[in-house]
Amino acid sequence: MGGPDPAVAAVRSAVRPGLTAGPAAGPVLVACSGGADSLALAAAVAFEAPRAGVPAGAVTVDHGLQAGSADRAAATAQLLRGLGLDPVLVRTVEVGTAGGPEGAAREARYAALIAAAHEHGARIALGHTRDDQAETVLLGLGRGSGPRSLAGMATWRPPLWRPLLDVDRATTRAACAAQGLPVWDDPHNTDPAYTRVRLRTEVLPLLEEVLGGGVARALARTAAMVREDVEALDDLARLPDPADCTALAALPPALRRRVLRGWLLEQGVADLAAVHLHAVDALVVAWRGQGRVDLPGGAGVVRASGRLALQGPPAPLRTPPSEEPHP
Amino acid sequence: MGGPDPAVAAVRSAVRPGLTAGPAAGPVLVACSGGADSLALAAAVAFEAPRAGVPAGAVTVDHGLQAGSADRAAATAQLLRGLGLDPVLVRTVEVGTAGGPEGAAREARYAALIAAAHEHGARIALGHTRDDQAETVLLGLGRGSGPRSLAGMATWRPPLWRPLLDVDRATTRAACAAQGLPVWDDPHNTDPAYTRVRLRTEVLPLLEEVLGGGVARALARTAAMVREDVEALDDLARLPDPADCTALAALPPALRRRVLRGWLLEQGVADLAAVHLHAVDALVVAWRGQGRVDLPGGAGVVRASGRLALQGPPAPLRTPPSEEPHP
Repeated sequence: MGGPDPAVAAVRSAVRPGLTAGPAAGPVLVACSGGADSLALAAAVAFEAPRAGVPAGAVTVDHGLQAGSADRAAATAQLLRGLGLDPVLVRTVEVGTAGGPEGAAREARYAALIAAAHEHGARIALGHTRDDQAETVLLGLGRGSGPRSLAGMATWRPPLWRPLLDVDRATTRAACAAQGLPVWDDPHNTDPAYTRVRLRTEVLPLLEEVLGGGVARALARTAAMVREDVEALDDLARLPDPADCTALAALPPALRRRVLRGWLLEQGVADLAAVHLHAVDALVVAWRGQGRVDLPGGAGVVRASGRLALQGPPAPLRTPPSEEPHP
Repeated sequence: MGGPDPAVAAVRSAVRPGLTAGPAAGPVLVACSGGADSLALAAAVAFEAPRAGVPAGAVTVDHGLQAGSADRAAATAQLLRGLGLDPVLVRTVEVGTAGGPEGAAREARYAALIAAAHEHGARIALGHTRDDQAETVLLGLGRGSGPRSLAGMATWRPPLWRPLLDVDRATTRAACAAQGLPVWDDPHNTDPAYTRVRLRTEVLPLLEEVLGGGVARALARTAAMVREDVEALDDLARLPDPADCTALAALPPALRRRVLRGWLLEQGVADLAAVHLHAVDALVVAWRGQGRVDLPGGAGVVRASGRLALQGPPAPLRTPPSEEPHP
């Protein structure tokens, strides 16, 4: 009797709408490590894309961090070709040390994926699930950097497309099993040296137990709503003259903070923490003649004649860093 | 030499600004259980209020749930009078069973405190600390009901005033010790039958360990920023005609959701969950001729001629329920 296994159907349903409609439409490269999430995604895209008339390939990254990683990448590529994806790229990266082992590997991986996207005029489909989203929200909470860090990962942040943020990890694993796909379990995924692994294996199960279940779903739902709020406020936070203290003081705090942040980022001030924004904000709303507010990179802000002015060594202009936590 | 102990000074500093300035100014009744947080608050208010020319009393609630609770309340009242607070009220409440043991006790306590506030034309000062705020945010996360539930407790929500949301529990305890105040440790505060107790004693310490410390502070800071966002968006979410689908569809999702929520609450529809709002929203932005959306209380919404209309048994008009989690 009919139709695919329910888990397979669930992953395919998650992939289908975004393949042809919406802002992410166009050729796809599935980023696949060989793990259950990205393999289930690859199989679903391989099934749905031809039916939607969308070209679909894949890319697997060899981080060179484990013995035999090149063989592993070649085997994954073979599996992906067997699913009918084309082209299937293998990208070898060099992982640095900056930002710790998780951060450095992530940085190298995303750089390779984004380069592949540009070379092939494709978006990159990523297999992040609802469980990854829950872990990302908890990591953001721990940083305390506010709503932006709670918003988790976006479904669509060009060129990255994450169609499985509403699918849980149990479903991707079941989908692989139902299709007889050999799943590779990255030993890093169970190594308690990684913060994310401890959130997954210790914190989330305890939260599930204490709060009575459904926590990953609740965290993911919250992330989606916080993301809508953050985006709406970012859009609304505009001033003709963002350095005018009178105009700034008339805004509600949530908008004022965003205007100040945008003004500083535009002028090349990066790595702003909440404490810096708070101090600059005090120049506007708690003015009692205080002096220069020092910012990262040697810059500073002063208030004079009712206006804010940036001082100090001109910070090199750079692209504002991504605020989005990439697992 | 001197000045007070640093912990005592910290609690007094937290209390001082709100005593005379800001929207909460006016006579105060400190809600005091005899525990460290509310006792440190009572001592700080007793010290600062006379200097600020503000009348200050206290109220202690006897929940009648433990043997000897009346004696305990009388002893706490005695202690509060000794601090110079006047009047000191003892309120005996009857705790029901609705909402579980935590919920029922909280409901009865807040009703008594708010009644005392109205009788005495006073605000109620509550001893919630940064740690309570962190627990509240985690509880809100677990509910998954969105940014509103992450916003935690407000410093000022008339008639409730919470001046200690930036002070941690270790400080209130140290302040009591430094002033020789006998702290009563409510056995409920360590009873693992309570969700909040398990968050405090199991989840938060594990999160601290995994995320590297500072989690309570991070959660409280996040709550404050989310609250600013929620308030700004609530203020901005207005439409001349909130039932007009064309006008609704032009709004960003975060504002549209709020306009719909406000429109339904105004018409007496209470207990709205995210799933209901989502279904009503689909009438606006994913219209394909679908039928009535059922809502709690027997009401429903239909779309006809480009407008939303409420149907069904007129829900009794009532005050919108508090969205704020009260510990």
